[in-house]
Parts: sequence; structure tokens; C-alpha cells
Amino acid sequence: MPYFDHNATTPLAPVAREAWLQASAETWHNPASPYREAARAKIRLDAARSRLAEFLGCAAEQVVFTSGATEGANATLAHWARMLPPDARVAVNPTEHPCVLEPAKQFFGERLVWLPVTSDGRVEHTAVKAAIEKTAVAGVIVMAANNETGVLQPWPEIARVCASAGVSYFCDAAQWLGKLPASGLGGAGWVIGAAHKFGGPKGVGFFQLPKGAESFRGQLGGAQQRGHRGGTEDLPGAVALVAALAEAEGKKVFQESERVRWREQFEQAVRTAVPGVTVVGAGAERLWNTVSLLMPHTENHRWVTRLDKLGFQVSTGSACATAKEGPSHVLSAMGFAQDEARRVIRVSAGWATVETDWNGLAAALATLESEFRADKVNVIKI
Amino acid sequence: MPYFDHNATTPLAPVAREAWLQASAETWHNPASPYREAARAKIRLDAARSRLAEFLGCAAEQVVFTSGATEGANATLAHWARMLPPDARVAVNPTEHPCVLEPAKQFFGERLVWLPVTSDGRVEHTAVKAAIEKTAVAGVIVMAANNETGVLQPWPEIARVCASAGVSYFCDAAQWLGKLPASGLGGAGWVIGAAHKFGGPKGVGFFQLPKGAESFRGQLGGAQQRGHRGGTEDLPGAVALVAALAEAEGKKVFQESERVRWREQFEQAVRTAVPGVTVVGAGAERLWNTVSLLMPHTENHRWVTRLDKLGFQVSTGSACATAKEGPSHVLSAMGFAQDEARRVIRVSAGWATVETDWNGLAAALATLESEFRADKVNVIKI
Repeated sequence: MPYFDHNATTPLAPVAREAWLQASAETWHNPASPYREAARAKIRLDAARSRLAEFLGCAAEQVVFTSGATEGANATLAHWARMLPPDARVAVNPTEHPCVLEPAKQFFGERLVWLPVTSDGRVEHTAVKAAIEKTAVAGVIVMAANNETGVLQPWPEIARVCASAGVSYFCDAAQWLGKLPASGLGGAGWVIGAAHKFGGPKGVGFFQLPKGAESFRGQLGGAQQRGHRGGTEDLPGAVALVAALAEAEGKKVFQESERVRWREQFEQAVRTAVPGVTVVGAGAERLWNTVSLLMPHTENHRWVTRLDKLGFQVSTGSACATAKEGPSHVLSAMGFAQDEARRVIRVSAGWATVETDWNGLAAALATLESEFRADKVNVIKI
Repeated sequence: MPYFDHNATTPLAPVAREAWLQASAETWHNPASPYREAARAKIRLDAARSRLAEFLGCAAEQVVFTSGATEGANATLAHWARMLPPDARVAVNPTEHPCVLEPAKQFFGERLVWLPVTSDGRVEHTAVKAAIEKTAVAGVIVMAANNETGVLQPWPEIARVCASAGVSYFCDAAQWLGKLPASGLGGAGWVIGAAHKFGGPKGVGFFQLPKGAESFRGQLGGAQQRGHRGGTEDLPGAVALVAALAEAEGKKVFQESERVRWREQFEQAVRTAVPGVTVVGAGAERLWNTVSLLMPHTENHRWVTRLDKLGFQVSTGSACATAKEGPSHVLSAMGFAQDEARRVIRVSAGWATVETDWNGLAAALATLESEFRADKVNVIKI
């Protein structure tokens, strides 16, 4: 059954499962305990940290393992709120994931400066520069790749703008990692990622601290991870995260690869089969795996349910958003109307997705288009 | 190699490994996604939550899966700080785990009321009652069982005192769960636990919210877990936690069992072989698995290192504390001097520990006693 919801979560990669099982069997001791087998666990944890730091291009001391990207986002913004002056303003991209937006609103409220977004979903680095110059923001929040649309943000340029202005930068790389090279994120300040988005286990993630963030305390309660996060380290989870990322990095089949071609073929096929469909963010550079389709008619839940019965698993938006009421804030920020956002379906492939899967999904959408068109009730409904 | 550091962490139980693998293979989809296989993951997650709630004796809606006890402690105390009046005072047991004490200090500082501890490490429920009546505390923090000494607190009585006074109660049950029955914790207000302390995987835990804590938001970022904790749920971790707890609960070999006898035999053997040794908290009811030994001479790291070479893994105290400088705050609170606390070793058995393991450890301590006595340098050193 072709699975097209990798941006929600991915199946556990066999290399990650093996790494988890091996660590659970061999180095399950508490890395903080005072005997030799515990020291072996500590060495293995440090090795996993160093390997991840190499992929990111940062020092090992900057890497902290966490329970996932949501923890990282909450902890980063809580830290900013504690460390920045009480009147400090923070510039934020309105298409961020809810795990970033919600703590940003809680901690900064009226002190948030909303960055402009193009109709293709991009935050230009010039807009970040303008926000820094005009409103004297002390921090900037712009993700690497959007979870709903796959739109890539110019984070290397934004990171440079922030660095040269001496402004903190927070880059949610949860959807970038494992799909595009991690290399360079070392220069992006505060960075978060989640293993289950790239074949690792659920409940494991990391953040990269910028240099000089020695005072950061994400969880209080112990000297683990240089005091940055108290709590017994999840060594099996950490080595499984690194194993999954290493495998994805090893593929080196990136934007320019045949996978972009498959996605583009799919988009073309859908445009032909479903007149009036819109590919959201079509003018922007996007992840090779993601297509956000604004259907010309019929509520997205109808499409998703029928596709499920035809053997294709797609989503109505982000998995977090589907559990909630209301249309996508991402689409709203890009200028779409509320009723349009209720017609959006998200398609997100994985490394195991092949050309025939994409073609099959396009054919299924064509079938449903005919079906819904024949059934006027659905078409008129929105 | 007899492992006597179960209070630091436990090996992964085979039932937990199987549950984790099965969930990772079969129901790895995001429970929040909108197709049938995701709905199956949601159903399985809800079933795990209900099972855990049954063990605790609470409603399923009160159970929130987390990344561990440290997360639970930090989130609970952050929530108390937000919800209680700005001048509210909180009574705290000074022998709590650092993951409780550190956030308590950060959030309440001078507003903490330190509860008296007996020389055996107990906080009497009458002392809690007095703190509520005399200093009008709005919250009470007393753990179920101490990680360093195994001393059991009278938490059922404390819970009743708090309930009848309308005061919040927070009970860290990380060391209790899996060793003694969970039943009754449903009445203990805010409760936290960690899977890796009872054969579950690392990086997984839970908290139980008291009834009426609808406003609790541990991590912002999504509607998962009724909004109590945003972030993709770790279903494999949750089902593994429940499988491990179910197995431990099924043993029903509790305080009155032969395991207490093995521990007592061990204590007697050590008292005979090592004149001047003190069993910390000897007068209190303690976990069947834990013995904290104040050795009459020689720094604890020497004992631990030599025991490791003889094939026994024990600890100098809590694993969290060993990574830090300074002697145990638990021993200090019980009235021991700093130099005494540096001679304490912690022995903590597991369900797989058998009588001959205990006897072997006692014999090893006897061997080392002779060795250290012969080597006067060590004996005089402290």
C-alpha cells in the first residue's frame, strides 16, 4: 500500500531498528553510573553525538539529544524568553510548525514580529534583514522546509544575515533532515530535528545549540549532557537516530535527482487529470518528496478517505493540524482563503517510494475526479 | 555478572522489546493522521493508556505519555508555578530526586517550605499536615520511594492529608513502580514514572494528572494527548512501557516476599563482615531491592571500582548524582556528615537477582574489607 504521508512520520528503517536493538542488548547501562560497562555506554553515546555533529558541521558539545522536535522548540523558546531582555522582539515566519508557533506566542505574545511570506510560501532573507534593521528584533525564527508544502526557506542566507547582525537564529530542520543534506546546519544557530521524520524511532530528537549557549538548561535534574538536559539519556534512541540519518545522508540523491522529476511528472499528471487544481508553492524550490494540492472542489477529507480505500495514504495537512479544528495556518499565511484551505491534500513520499507509486497516485486522483464530478453534491459542496 | 544498579536503569525486558518491535512494525503510523492505519495506531495508543490507568487506578484521560520522569517533574512544577498564586508556598521533601528538587528551586525558590525528615529518611504525614496548617502551603512534594536509600514514604497518608486540605500533591513514583503495586497511585494527585526503571525502554515515561487539570500543557505544539503534550506520540515506547509494567505487576512478589528476606540476610552478612557499617534508613520500611551502605572507611569510589573488578556492579549513589560533584543531598537531609556521605554505596537488585547474587555480593564486600584493612592508606584516608 503506497504510503504518501512521510512528513507525518516514517516507518522505522531496518538500520535504525538494528542499532536500537544492539544498544538495548549491549550498552543498556546508565551512562552516568560508575563502572566499566556504564563507561562503555557513555563512550557510545559520545560517539553518536560526534557523528551527528559531523553531519551538521558543528562541535559535538553543541549537540543535545532530546525526545523530539517539539521538546526542542519549547525549550529553545523558553530559554530565549529567559535570556533576552524583557522587551526584546522576535521575528517569526507565520508558516512555522505549531510546535514552534505556540511556544513563540506564549513566550513572546505581542513582542512577535510577523515576517512577510510570498504567495509561494517563502520568507526572503531581505525581509529578515529589514525586520532586524527596522524593528531591532533580537531573535529570528524561520524553518528549513515546510511540513505542509515542502517549500524550502533560504535558511543559509537567513543564518548569515542573523550572524552578521548578532541576532539569534532558530531553524526547525525537522522536515529538511534526511531528505536534504544536514551539512551547513552547523552554521544555523539553534536547530532542531526529530528522528521519526527520517526513519528513526519516535520519541527521539536533538537540538544543536549555537556556540556560547553554555547556560542553556532544557530540563533540570541532573548533569547529563553537560547539564543541558537532565534525565537518563536514551542511548538506543540516539544511536538509532544517527543510524537512520547516516543512511539517508548516504543516499545523496538530492534535489537535482530523478526524484524531483517523479514529483514534477506527478504534478503535471494531476494538472491534466484535475482541471483547476493548484500546486501550492509551485514557484518555490520545494522538497523532492512533498506536494500540497489545492483541489478545485470537494472537501479534503473526502479525497483522503477515498484514496485510503484505493490504497493510497495521504494527509489533509500536517498530522498535528488534522487532530485540530480549523484550516491550515500555513495556507492562510500564503494568502489562500479559509474555504480553499479545506480542499488541500498533502502528498509526501519517502526514499522507498518509486516512480510507479507516484503514477498510481496520479491515476487514483484522476479516477476520483471523475467520480466526484459525476456526483454533483460533492462538487457543489464547497 | 551480577548487576546491582537497577535504581539507575534496568535491562530491557524481553516483553518490552517484543512490544516495541511489534508496534514499530505494525502500528508505526502517526496516530493523528486521517486514514485507517493511523486510526489503528490511535486505538492501540488509547488501549495502552487505559491499561496503565487501570494499574494506577485513575481514568484514562488522566494519563499522559512523556519522555521520562524528568520531563514530568519539570512540566508539573512549571505548571504549578503558572497556576498557583504568585505568593503560594510549596512544601517539599529534601530527599527528592534532583529532577524534582532543581525545578522546585527554580520555580519556587524562597517560597519552598522544607519538610522535616527523620533520621531514617521518612517524611511523616503529620509533618505534612503541620506544614499545611502552619504555613498554608498550596502544594506538597513527597516521593513514593527514595532512589538512593529505598526508604518508602507514607504517600497514601500524605495523599489523604493533601486531598482533605484541598492542596495539590506531587508524588514521584519512579522508583516505586514495577517494584511495588501501582494500585492506589490514582489517588496521589500528580504522579510521574519512567519506563527504564522497570524494564521498559529509555526515553519513555508518563504522568498522571489529577482530576480537573484540564488546563495542563506540558509541551505546546499540537492537539496530541488531549492537548496536554504536543508532539507525535511514541506508540512503540508507550506499549513497551505498559508491557514491562504489566509483567512486573504480575509478579506480585512484594514487600512480604522472600526478596525482603534476601535483602535482610545480605544486610546481616555485611554487618558481620564489615564492623562499623551502617545500613542507611534501617529503621524505615524500604524497597525490597535497595540497600544503602555507609561504609566505616574508604571512599565509595574505591569500593565500587574494586567490586566492578570482582564482577559486581553497584553505584555510589544516584546515577544523576555520580555525574556531579559533591556528596548526596539525601544523606545530608538524613543528618549524615559530608565525609560520611562520601563513603556510601548503593546496592539495588532487580527481579532477576537471586539469593546467590546477594550472597556473592556480601562475600565480595567481606573480601574487600580485609583487603582495605590490610592497606592502611585507604582506611585512614577518610
